Amino acid sequence: MRRRRLVVQKYGGSSVANPERITRVAQRVVAAKRTGADVVVVVSALGDTTDELLQLAAQISQDPPERELDMLMATGEQVSVALLAMAIHELDEDAVSFTGAQIGILTDGTHTKARIVAIPAQRVVKELAQNRIVIVAGFQGINLNQDITTLGRGGSDLTAVALAVALRADVCEIFTDVEGVYTADPRMVPDARKLTAISYDEMLEMASLGAQVMQARSIFVAKRFNIPIHVRSSFSQREGTMITKSAKAMEDIVVSGVTLQRDEAKVTIRDVPDKPGMAAEIFRELAGKGINVDMIVQNVSREGSTDLSFTVVKSDLPSTLRVARMVSHRIGAGEVTTDEGVAKLSIVGIGMRSHSGIAAKMFESMARERINIEMISTSEIKISCVIRKLHAERAVRAVHRAFGLSRERVATHRRPAAMLGA
Amino acid sequence: MRRRRLVVQKYGGSSVANPERITRVAQRVVAAKRTGADVVVVVSALGDTTDELLQLAAQISQDPPERELDMLMATGEQVSVALLAMAIHELDEDAVSFTGAQIGILTDGTHTKARIVAIPAQRVVKELAQNRIVIVAGFQGINLNQDITTLGRGGSDLTAVALAVALRADVCEIFTDVEGVYTADPRMVPDARKLTAISYDEMLEMASLGAQVMQARSIFVAKRFNIPIHVRSSFSQREGTMITKSAKAMEDIVVSGVTLQRDEAKVTIRDVPDKPGMAAEIFRELAGKGINVDMIVQNVSREGSTDLSFTVVKSDLPSTLRVARMVSHRIGAGEVTTDEGVAKLSIVGIGMRSHSGIAAKMFESMARERINIEMISTSEIKISCVIRKLHAERAVRAVHRAFGLSRERVATHRRPAAMLGA
Repeated sequence: MRRRRLVVQKYGGSSVANPERITRVAQRVVAAKRTGADVVVVVSALGDTTDELLQLAAQISQDPPERELDMLMATGEQVSVALLAMAIHELDEDAVSFTGAQIGILTDGTHTKARIVAIPAQRVVKELAQNRIVIVAGFQGINLNQDITTLGRGGSDLTAVALAVALRADVCEIFTDVEGVYTADPRMVPDARKLTAISYDEMLEMASLGAQVMQARSIFVAKRFNIPIHVRSSFSQREGTMITKSAKAMEDIVVSGVTLQRDEAKVTIRDVPDKPGMAAEIFRELAGKGINVDMIVQNVSREGSTDLSFTVVKSDLPSTLRVARMVSHRIGAGEVTTDEGVAKLSIVGIGMRSHSGIAAKMFESMARERINIEMISTSEIKISCVIRKLHAERAVRAVHRAFGLSRERVATHRRPAAMLGA
Repeated sequence: MRRRRLVVQKYGGSSVANPERITRVAQRVVAAKRTGADVVVVVSALGDTTDELLQLAAQISQDPPERELDMLMATGEQVSVALLAMAIHELDEDAVSFTGAQIGILTDGTHTKARIVAIPAQRVVKELAQNRIVIVAGFQGINLNQDITTLGRGGSDLTAVALAVALRADVCEIFTDVEGVYTADPRMVPDARKLTAISYDEMLEMASLGAQVMQARSIFVAKRFNIPIHVRSSFSQREGTMITKSAKAMEDIVVSGVTLQRDEAKVTIRDVPDKPGMAAEIFRELAGKGINVDMIVQNVSREGSTDLSFTVVKSDLPSTLRVARMVSHRIGAGEVTTDEGVAKLSIVGIGMRSHSGIAAKMFESMARERINIEMISTSEIKISCVIRKLHAERAVRAVHRAFGLSRERVATHRRPAAMLGA
């Protein structure tokens, strides 16, 4: 017997910020249910709840135990699921809410940024079979010790995608405050276009390049288990952007989007001895401190030494400097300098693989605007350039234009912001 | 090997209303721990959290499903336990917090007023063995279906007493915003005296007669398993009132306290046919609607019928009237009238059992004040009178004086209020 269509929907904090909005979400959920589908809903904490809870904790301890932080944070989503269940009951549908622990969302033991290990589907399946809408608290799970864990940034998206995997859902709908994924941040590029479809790989690059629509970890899981994701607005009925294996409609388009990150800083270690193992030593130490290094550029050696530059997110800069200075001293390298006046502009597109001259076109478009490129790094489906932050927005518009991304105008809508890095 | 002394402490919502107070509670908990005892702490939700959550629910639904209400309410205590654990860590003691579900506090399925069925001690014992302070969310548990339940009014006290039973604790300390149990409400009787000890039975009567210090259900459990309860203030270091099996120090005192309830109304059914089963029919119907009837008085029959009066709490008055009118019609009785201008004054004391003339002394003291008594009911250790509400406070002072309860003056303290009914 073919089972009913199964939809997992996820609503972010701004979609459930107050009772009125919760009721609106309930209407959407009920509408989906009344199409005849089974519906599982994942909800984040109401509006600013998480920040408020963190502030409360900060008044008590500057360095609270992470287990207790998770215990505290997890209440945010528990409030949301209970209220949404009530709102759905008001609309005469049966709904039942669950914490991550009740479903048995099993994670590893890394408090505040746990990884999902397994989601048993039984309880959800049982409730769906009774024609109920199932509401699950996002962002949270339990470890083997029955302690409550939270999944860190983008955790609710991850809960939704992982549930979609566990339940073999037909689609995972991510409701957010933007209309979908854009070719560039519309606040920066007014004629940026909403993509109707994009591939997992492109979205993965975009996410790690500053597009704030979804975190890379959720897209990675969706890709691995081939779960279609529909990113759309909770404030409109319009279709958003489908993220799937191969976005056919997009295949004639070489570049899908332009992203910008302004939250990185450049670090340079001067006069690194040009012998094997030097770079390894530096980056091993940084990795040991949990610092993610992004772009790395090493110039050709002159007179037995070289300059090594890399970028890190600004918040990691103080610890990066400490480590870099220590290692530099140990290996006999020179001064360590930093530069926070940089931005990273990237183009992303599966089409790049089969097209030549993409890099040249990108560099030319910036050269025409007299914008200097300080670092370059490429992958199969993206090219990133570090430039002066001062010129960043102008560069984004130039590149966006060069690749013809603005062919159609976007319909007017509430808040189109989508792809800007911090 | 004799294990260490084990103390269960319970702090109410006003004791943990803000970060500053939570830190003060942490200091008290740590002080207890540093006497060498094992310490288990039960906490209520912060200040007005529960009311705020209920308001949020009310904005969404006038009649929310009780399962979802419990899901919502339970977050209040979860926030408290996490914050208290953090505050204790700040004081360099190891603490670990648990929800009711994590401990496995098993209740029946009656949402919003569940009864505790069992508390497995393993997890708590294991954590105590590691020299940790264990913090447990009050007021909540889970049913066999893993749904979150709450215990209703006085639920956190019940969690504390039940944990004390499960762990065979040496004492259960109930920290509150009053200094202990008083001979009368000090707001009404300025020279009321704090009792150093009181028996379970007396405290049970007092609780059900309007003393707000503790709910009867917790005292009942403590009595059944003989767990000493120490009711004391979280704002002072003074000893409070010990509730134990037989309060030796009190045995020469005939009456322990005077209580007053102002939240009841009198209902009278006129001309009830004087034949067997009439009263049973009325009270069976009321019980079926979950209405607790308190005092019942039936006058002697005249001309084949009688008037039947009883009291109920005011909030039950509308449903009581509906039921009473329906039954009155069915059994051929007369008009149903109500009177909300009444109050119930009671005296409680184990000493009554062996002393005669107590009732006479009580009635005389009121007669001297020209206060009329409308209904009387007695048990082995209490006598209650329904009087005009207008005269209630004067009556309390008169009775308190008549039984010599004001022998010592109470030390000045922050907020001595203790025993007033609503």
